[in-house]
Amino acid sequence: MGGRTGAELDLLGIGNAIVDVLAHADEAFLEAHGLPKGAMTLVDADRADRLYDAMGPGVEVSGGSCANTVAGAASLGSAVAYVGKVRDDQLGRIFAHDIRAAGVAFDTPPAPDGPGTARCLVLVTPDAQRTMCTYLGACVELGPEDVDPGLVARAAVTYLEGYLWDPPRAKEAFRKAMAAARAAGRRVALTLSDPFCVERHRDEFRHLVDHEVDVLFANEHELVALYEAASLEEAIAAVRGRCELAAVTRSAQGSLVVAGDEVHEVAAAAVERVVDTTGAGDLYAAGFIHGLTHGMDPAACARLGGLAAAEVIAHVGARPERPLRELVAAV
Amino acid sequence: MGGRTGAELDLLGIGNAIVDVLAHADEAFLEAHGLPKGAMTLVDADRADRLYDAMGPGVEVSGGSCANTVAGAASLGSAVAYVGKVRDDQLGRIFAHDIRAAGVAFDTPPAPDGPGTARCLVLVTPDAQRTMCTYLGACVELGPEDVDPGLVARAAVTYLEGYLWDPPRAKEAFRKAMAAARAAGRRVALTLSDPFCVERHRDEFRHLVDHEVDVLFANEHELVALYEAASLEEAIAAVRGRCELAAVTRSAQGSLVVAGDEVHEVAAAAVERVVDTTGAGDLYAAGFIHGLTHGMDPAACARLGGLAAAEVIAHVGARPERPLRELVAAV
Repeated sequence: MGGRTGAELDLLGIGNAIVDVLAHADEAFLEAHGLPKGAMTLVDADRADRLYDAMGPGVEVSGGSCANTVAGAASLGSAVAYVGKVRDDQLGRIFAHDIRAAGVAFDTPPAPDGPGTARCLVLVTPDAQRTMCTYLGACVELGPEDVDPGLVARAAVTYLEGYLWDPPRAKEAFRKAMAAARAAGRRVALTLSDPFCVERHRDEFRHLVDHEVDVLFANEHELVALYEAASLEEAIAAVRGRCELAAVTRSAQGSLVVAGDEVHEVAAAAVERVVDTTGAGDLYAAGFIHGLTHGMDPAACARLGGLAAAEVIAHVGARPERPLRELVAAV
Repeated sequence: MGGRTGAELDLLGIGNAIVDVLAHADEAFLEAHGLPKGAMTLVDADRADRLYDAMGPGVEVSGGSCANTVAGAASLGSAVAYVGKVRDDQLGRIFAHDIRAAGVAFDTPPAPDGPGTARCLVLVTPDAQRTMCTYLGACVELGPEDVDPGLVARAAVTYLEGYLWDPPRAKEAFRKAMAAARAAGRRVALTLSDPFCVERHRDEFRHLVDHEVDVLFANEHELVALYEAASLEEAIAAVRGRCELAAVTRSAQGSLVVAGDEVHEVAAAAVERVVDTTGAGDLYAAGFIHGLTHGMDPAACARLGGLAAAEVIAHVGARPERPLRELVAAV
């Protein structure tokens, strides 16, 4: 049983199931390989191989934006399930082990053939920023057949990542899940994922926010891109009234929550030393949704999001290293 | 060109090529699974799978005791090559990428079939100690055909891990490499690897130290096990005169170097917070051998070993996170 919503699950996440390969890199490496700093670039298998050959020694950790979020929510004490597609290979087994070991129900069958489990090459620069190159691999095999409407109906919140709009059949899975959530009277949450992802799918994302989404997550750059706004203020004005809640993250400036007529501004949690910003937005969403399904007001949700993000940027990797439950008491 | 020895390579390492899977665990987990704390236990594929299913989320990093040592030596500026066997699978590709990206020449052909690349489940307890369970996988395919005597002859030091004595054909490879090194007038270095490994192969290891090894690496428990001594002092007395140099590590107590009639006692380097002791001995050997091949006296070699070990125990994982060259100036 989940939190205060009466639903069996607090959160169902649907996303691209990815194993991250983290390595240190300098700005010159990003430039030499034409990688826009701070963003996520989709690459094919050949380019992924060439980049991997050129980069330094790596550390492999399970990733995937939405998967990081559900792992974080489970660590906070939420009852959580995840849907995403891996191949039945070594990396797929790593992904499945890690998400289950984090306390998340994960039963999507792995693809028996086709491309291998997705990999994201995460290049961490000396300023702790991360630049990502994703080879989607088996994620392109995720389809509507992987979404069980009964599972969706049991979750208070179904959380979807904008990145799912890239592989065509995943988009169908996304639409099916949204429809099932709305039919069951549950909430739909969406993260815009990345400014370039917004560029690729702007019109459709705007339509989703207007008609399908209850809770929107975006960083300031993504929100500005969504509304082609001249400033954050303009983007905030544009999103107002379009969905129940819009949570906008601003790195060290904390976050803003647009809730009806109100805008709550919440400061970032203190971090002694920022080591790797990978997963900051994902863990913010984890904290926010955990708060939402456990009866917290929007500002408290944002504070819990900030605390969860602060844990994950203080170390390498995008999943919490210590149980996050203690953070709940600190809000 | 290597250091001051006139050899083309400073160091050739031969070892079990392994990918580590690091996870946090508590003492109760070790007890429940009958794992001797701080040691390395060999497990078969089934037991490795059961342990993996039971343990928490992991982080995958290239490991292997000797491979960590050569990566460390390369980071210090040594000219280094490595011989070890992986399978041509995803983990094997990760291992090969990481060791090459660390600056080590690695050309051992991967096994095209048979067991997968070796994995070591590394369970890190809250006291930063590591307990290891190794599934040797493709390492059992390493054989004398993988050792090129010409490559051995080009290296000032050939460094072998005691763990190689476990897979039978690797032992043949080990013997072939030792013979080639001696024929070329080069030094042979051996690490005893683990007290249980010493128990398994005590008589043969004693014979090696007496007749084949120039530089011996051991921690105090391994040396005591080798000579079935009642104390470290007794073990030190037992090893004296049996090889050119014996470097004995003592965790926070630093190390002792037995060099002919002399025993040099060197304090441990300061570490702000010990996070994970995985690789401490491996990096000590890296620093020591780098010093040895670059004209340092035994005490300076031990200090450099201690500095390299201090870097690796301050973070998760057994390979250096930052270039170690700057340590050389600090000795």
